[in-house]
Amino acid sequence: MVGMTVIQTPADWRTDQDPGGLVQRYDDVRGHTERLAAPLSPEDQTVQSMADVSPTKWHRAHVTWFFETFLLAEHESGFAPFQDQYWFLFNSYYETLGPRYSRPDRGLITRPGVHEVGDYRANVDDRVRDLIARLDDGTLAALAPTIELGFHHEQQHQELLLMDIKHVLSRNPLQPVYAGAPPPRSEPDALGWVDVEGGLVEIGHDPTTQGFCFDNELPRHRQWLEPYRLADRLVTNGEWLAFVADGGYRRHELWLSDGWSRVNAEGWTAPLYWSEVDGVWFEHTLHGTWPVDPGAPVCHVSFYEAEAFATWAGKRLPSEGEWEHAVVSTGLSSTGAPAGGAYHPRAAGPATGGLRQVHGECWEWTSSAYHPYPGFHPPPGAIGEYNGKFMSNQMVLRGGCALTSPGHARTTYRNFFPHAARWALSGVRLADGGAPR
Amino acid sequence: MVGMTVIQTPADWRTDQDPGGLVQRYDDVRGHTERLAAPLSPEDQTVQSMADVSPTKWHRAHVTWFFETFLLAEHESGFAPFQDQYWFLFNSYYETLGPRYSRPDRGLITRPGVHEVGDYRANVDDRVRDLIARLDDGTLAALAPTIELGFHHEQQHQELLLMDIKHVLSRNPLQPVYAGAPPPRSEPDALGWVDVEGGLVEIGHDPTTQGFCFDNELPRHRQWLEPYRLADRLVTNGEWLAFVADGGYRRHELWLSDGWSRVNAEGWTAPLYWSEVDGVWFEHTLHGTWPVDPGAPVCHVSFYEAEAFATWAGKRLPSEGEWEHAVVSTGLSSTGAPAGGAYHPRAAGPATGGLRQVHGECWEWTSSAYHPYPGFHPPPGAIGEYNGKFMSNQMVLRGGCALTSPGHARTTYRNFFPHAARWALSGVRLADGGAPR
Amino acid sequence: MVGMTVIQTPADWRTDQDPGGLVQRYDDVRGHTERLAAPLSPEDQTVQSMADVSPTKWHRAHVTWFFETFLLAEHESGFAPFQDQYWFLFNSYYETLGPRYSRPDRGLITRPGVHEVGDYRANVDDRVRDLIARLDDGTLAALAPTIELGFHHEQQHQELLLMDIKHVLSRNPLQPVYAGAPPPRSEPDALGWVDVEGGLVEIGHDPTTQGFCFDNELPRHRQWLEPYRLADRLVTNGEWLAFVADGGYRRHELWLSDGWSRVNAEGWTAPLYWSEVDGVWFEHTLHGTWPVDPGAPVCHVSFYEAEAFATWAGKRLPSEGEWEHAVVSTGLSSTGAPAGGAYHPRAAGPATGGLRQVHGECWEWTSSAYHPYPGFHPPPGAIGEYNGKFMSNQMVLRGGCALTSPGHARTTYRNFFPHAARWALSGVRLADGGAPR
Amino acid sequence: MVGMTVIQTPADWRTDQDPGGLVQRYDDVRGHTERLAAPLSPEDQTVQSMADVSPTKWHRAHVTWFFETFLLAEHESGFAPFQDQYWFLFNSYYETLGPRYSRPDRGLITRPGVHEVGDYRANVDDRVRDLIARLDDGTLAALAPTIELGFHHEQQHQELLLMDIKHVLSRNPLQPVYAGAPPPRSEPDALGWVDVEGGLVEIGHDPTTQGFCFDNELPRHRQWLEPYRLADRLVTNGEWLAFVADGGYRRHELWLSDGWSRVNAEGWTAPLYWSEVDGVWFEHTLHGTWPVDPGAPVCHVSFYEAEAFATWAGKRLPSEGEWEHAVVSTGLSSTGAPAGGAYHPRAAGPATGGLRQVHGECWEWTSSAYHPYPGFHPPPGAIGEYNGKFMSNQMVLRGGCALTSPGHARTTYRNFFPHAARWALSGVRLADGGAPR
Repeated sequence: MVGMTVIQTPADWRTDQDPGGLVQRYDDVRGHTERLAAPLSPEDQTVQSMADVSPTKWHRAHVTWFFETFLLAEHESGFAPFQDQYWFLFNSYYETLGPRYSRPDRGLITRPGVHEVGDYRANVDDRVRDLIARLDDGTLAALAPTIELGFHHEQQHQELLLMDIKHVLSRNPLQPVYAGAPPPRSEPDALGWVDVEGGLVEIGHDPTTQGFCFDNELPRHRQWLEPYRLADRLVTNGEWLAFVADGGYRRHELWLSDGWSRVNAEGWTAPLYWSEVDGVWFEHTLHGTWPVDPGAPVCHVSFYEAEAFATWAGKRLPSEGEWEHAVVSTGLSSTGAPAGGAYHPRAAGPATGGLRQVHGECWEWTSSAYHPYPGFHPPPGAIGEYNGKFMSNQMVLRGGCALTSPGHARTTYRNFFPHAARWALSGVRLADGGAPR
Repeated sequence: MVGMTVIQTPADWRTDQDPGGLVQRYDDVRGHTERLAAPLSPEDQTVQSMADVSPTKWHRAHVTWFFETFLLAEHESGFAPFQDQYWFLFNSYYETLGPRYSRPDRGLITRPGVHEVGDYRANVDDRVRDLIARLDDGTLAALAPTIELGFHHEQQHQELLLMDIKHVLSRNPLQPVYAGAPPPRSEPDALGWVDVEGGLVEIGHDPTTQGFCFDNELPRHRQWLEPYRLADRLVTNGEWLAFVADGGYRRHELWLSDGWSRVNAEGWTAPLYWSEVDGVWFEHTLHGTWPVDPGAPVCHVSFYEAEAFATWAGKRLPSEGEWEHAVVSTGLSSTGAPAGGAYHPRAAGPATGGLRQVHGECWEWTSSAYHPYPGFHPPPGAIGEYNGKFMSNQMVLRGGCALTSPGHARTTYRNFFPHAARWALSGVRLADGGAPR
Repeated sequence: MVGMTVIQTPADWRTDQDPGGLVQRYDDVRGHTERLAAPLSPEDQTVQSMADVSPTKWHRAHVTWFFETFLLAEHESGFAPFQDQYWFLFNSYYETLGPRYSRPDRGLITRPGVHEVGDYRANVDDRVRDLIARLDDGTLAALAPTIELGFHHEQQHQELLLMDIKHVLSRNPLQPVYAGAPPPRSEPDALGWVDVEGGLVEIGHDPTTQGFCFDNELPRHRQWLEPYRLADRLVTNGEWLAFVADGGYRRHELWLSDGWSRVNAEGWTAPLYWSEVDGVWFEHTLHGTWPVDPGAPVCHVSFYEAEAFATWAGKRLPSEGEWEHAVVSTGLSSTGAPAGGAYHPRAAGPATGGLRQVHGECWEWTSSAYHPYPGFHPPPGAIGEYNGKFMSNQMVLRGGCALTSPGHARTTYRNFFPHAARWALSGVRLADGGAPR
Repeated sequence: MVGMTVIQTPADWRTDQDPGGLVQRYDDVRGHTERLAAPLSPEDQTVQSMADVSPTKWHRAHVTWFFETFLLAEHESGFAPFQDQYWFLFNSYYETLGPRYSRPDRGLITRPGVHEVGDYRANVDDRVRDLIARLDDGTLAALAPTIELGFHHEQQHQELLLMDIKHVLSRNPLQPVYAGAPPPRSEPDALGWVDVEGGLVEIGHDPTTQGFCFDNELPRHRQWLEPYRLADRLVTNGEWLAFVADGGYRRHELWLSDGWSRVNAEGWTAPLYWSEVDGVWFEHTLHGTWPVDPGAPVCHVSFYEAEAFATWAGKRLPSEGEWEHAVVSTGLSSTGAPAGGAYHPRAAGPATGGLRQVHGECWEWTSSAYHPYPGFHPPPGAIGEYNGKFMSNQMVLRGGCALTSPGHARTTYRNFFPHAARWALSGVRLADGGAPR
């Protein structure tokens, strides 16, 4: 393991440094992954339905590899890898760590099977707990950011695991179900607007709060915003059905040129996972296939669709700065309360005068390209590849979704996907105003 | 099941019409499939490593679907399918039977899992046994050809199951092993030649023998052969190593133009499954990865490679007529004895003066395009799609291989693969002479 | 020009060895190429509309390169190439002669332009005439086969030049016309049949005739044919319209599997160059776009279409042996009279009791794969690449077509194209019988 | 021509409304196109070397179509198109105007040839002059913006014509030359920096200046900039050679992930048009192929390369706001002086304390995605497709280049290309600072 670089973290990353508390959180996060995988058979956990998707057992192994590589390999005395080839098989994209197994071929690896992956997880868990127990306070303080990053990394993969298996199951004409019944059907709700003053505002993670953030949320910086307003809830399926009925997917003038090419090349006529049977639209969910619920937020739309819908509605998408400033300035807590038990976005609750559905339903497309904040520098070493190298050809999404793990969402959190991606649980919040006076 | 066509068989297909014997053979064939699948985990049985390969559990289900579709659906009173969607999922290529699931996506289907496929098999087995027991003699005589075809169909898939899982396991850097140790290493053996007179010969299945054949082995017809000779054994790995060392894969003048394009486009430098480590060639087998055995027959070469090798050796490939006539005229039994227990071709036994390794080691590429015999007509209905529609862009292979099921090989048997296919267990027998005097 | 190999010709190639006659024929052949190119603008002569097509000016330069490379470079004292880079640019596919310019990019080369290509042709012409004038009788006798091959090579490219420019012009919505009015419209004509005895027949070029042939027409060899019969004329457009109207392009059961895939992937609904406007079928020809003539032979159909049509008609395609033997045994002259002035196949003349439209209308698909004759060996050196290396994945066509140069067709001539090729001027003659009795 | 929409222009577009002056400018702009095409043969003008490139004669026809469509079709009494099919052939991308000829196939159209395109140009020119002469003042004032847009549109295509033919000629191993000798070789020059204060600045076209702009330069709006500095000249070939020598194209850590994929997939080792012969780097230019000039600006690099270079240099690319504000605030005139006579960027002149090479050498990549300005709305009708629909997946470039037509560049001008594009004449200016304090 020569040449491994210690993770450098920004000065403002702080984390729990109590060994007992750390182990407790470790067990919570790790256990959550296993609970999510539990309903899935070995066959389910093996398949990769497209290049963007990874098999469940690959997720389970990769997050384990992350702890083994960035924590144990650096700090365990007498470290030896659990299995030499796992180093190669379960590296996701870290060029710094040498050659790795081809991403689009992850679904070809039948072994290790789900049980051997379980053994791998158990082995690393024991060794991590053991390492934490042995560390002196100073070393623990130095390693805590790496462990904390491992938690958030695993939570990201928990969300991906669910998005990915949703896609896998969607390819099966037998319409398999991951979990029990979906949220109850709902009634459409009037759309309200929240006005925001704007001005010279600060965007990005606030170091004085001392909470965790990814490097791409830094540095905090100033940005000028003209007055604007945001919709107080997400666009609903009912509204999307009106867009479809009005020829939304057939009118070129609503679309960006690249989006229109996709519509035609891939035959889009509705969000991913929608299908029409005898004039009724159905939606594949992790709870089975059900008629589309008009009151629930539309999800699994691409940036192109979100943008075309906004054009059709005579509105626009918010910038990520507008989104973040609106959430902060209207006094919402920085971490939302994700859905309990349901793996699908729910209809908005009653109007509050403020923003609804900020965290916990759908990731919200913004009009902002995923670019570095002014002054951004990735940390040195392999961990510098975590976020920075992906800052092109993608758009920022904000908020969180029904599949986001508890405690993972954050107001300054910058999620990102390519313009045409639809398998993420992505939705739309409209914006208006913001133009020069 | 409206519109299903009764299988039409040539008048010369005969089969066992004793119910007890038929059930016994049914159980033997069906049981053999399950024995082959037994060492494979659910994960192993799910994956499709390329479009040509099918998952193990798909093979197990498809051969079951064949009996359900062509036997039960036609003749079981009150027939209802085991599961409606299986009709769609497990149809391989029968256009006559309606839409079917996309072949290259077979590896995306996680459910039914291996256990549900087992339930499907058990259910159909019970119903077939029951049907046979209830039939009167006349009906049994009418159905026997369909049942017989189901046996041979399942045997074909037994061989494919092994070829396919070999490819799946080959993609895994952990080098998984399907079965115990390989055949013992062997010593190279001198090549002998068998002279054949030729003349106006008869080719194709002989109806007077009353044994089973596929439709593509008919009709028996006359062909003119000039005198020729065949090598008495297959080309060995040792001989192939000499070809490689002599620049066989780098000399354009040895290759057909299409073959040379493949060599360059796919970077071929040796047979599929060979890899060089520190100057030593290793071979992936179902028994693990071992140094190439110079005395064993070369296998997993394409038609292009076989043809280039023959050119390099100053020889040629036999036509399928030459191959068949030589085997018949030199008095070999029409069905060879496949390998027992080993899933890899073995070195030739001592010279006999006749042809060695005719059945049971490697399918042998011929110089013959896979075309219909003069007067060939496929049977009407869905079963007419079994062979006839594939008669273009493929070459005939003869003999059988180490993975062929016991009793399945036959002197008139016409196997076929595209010119560039390498994942079949294909080898080379040289020919000479045969030119006009 | 080190390493150039003298062309080896079979002992039975004979050619004119009178210098004056040779120069006269040289001028005739070379002049014909220029006459064919004359109606084409510089823009027309530059474009490559698909990888199979070559630009007109490339054809004009390549056939010149052939004489420069295989004749002048070997035998001109003090030889220097006209332009060093032309060696690279105008080599078609001779691997032996080193690297060459990428075939699919031939349409990217704007220079040399048409005038510089004209200069190249004039220069080589002068030098060839000069060389012939200086040679003593013995040397001339030795070189005559190479010169003769150059004639036939250039004639092949004359035909290709016309097929290729037809494709180029077809892509233009302005519907450009290459030459004057098409043949007059004709009336459908009854189909007759010609019976042929068969037996042990001889196929291939007869060396005792001493005429020129390509290497792939050798060696002459014996073949067994059961009694059969051939249609006395080609399939007409009128018959093809009936096939289309009967769902020919929509009925899977008529097609080979590979053909059916093409039909669907490429949306075939009629021969290449047909288009339907308000219920009337039109055909793009070198004489402009005209309503399909029901009495003229159908052309620009692939092997797959020819085969599906024959299946629909309850007939089959002839083998190349059947075709050749029928023409020879029914006493037709070995070289047909191609069309004069028309660049499109004409309706058959009145029935004669024998075969009609054998040469000069459409190349006729056979059921024979393009494989070497028994005992075939390509000549050594670069010229050995002329035919032999293409003997896979193609089907043989016999006869000749309206675009074939005068004197180029021959009864033993083996033309060949891939199964799906449609831009050649290919048609269909039906066969029947020939099965074992 | 039913359904054509009058061009809507922003209230702040103003243009010359004197008929004589307008005709004079029309003749100047149109004549410049013909002068650029004059050195090119019919063959040169016909070819499309990749999908992004258009043939010279297509450019000449398309800009003519623009005047015919947006001016004559609307305002000429008794309008009839010059040729019906030209409407289809020479529409570039206006969906509103109906179906159009496939862009990647523009190089397949041999007719109309260069002379017929000349006739088309002459005809439209006459009619435009005639229309202008007949108009009353009010109508002329209403049409002037359309005519003005036609001028700027044609100038854009003049630049593209040169970039495109450069690519066409680059594919030819004969290394054709478009124009005489290149700029003289130069000496490297020290890099200086220009400090800019930033703050709350205004970006975008200033309507009070009344000059022409494209819709994407509007509306002018406020933006916050932290203090920053820009390099006073472009990155030189000499500096790029140091990047190459330091492994710039082999070190993953310098690259965005998408960029690194391109480097490997396309084998980038240097800018487009560079080639190494015996250790010396040469560059294909419109003046022929010459050794790379170390003092001249590097050009034909993609955004990915520009970004990787900046990372290697420890600097970054400027945002488009920084670029524009720096140019304005340091007092440079808004339109630069393009190169006279040379079709290749020249070395910087002596340092001035201010920015050098702002217009007239290379378009400069910025770190800004090509997105709409706040409050942007495209005009209604077909002309609304001019810019707005391309606002995704591209990056903004600023400045102008050696191929930009005189008078076309502008400080607020927003050029844009995809991240991987290299055939535009694109270079790099470094930036530094700008991070939050």
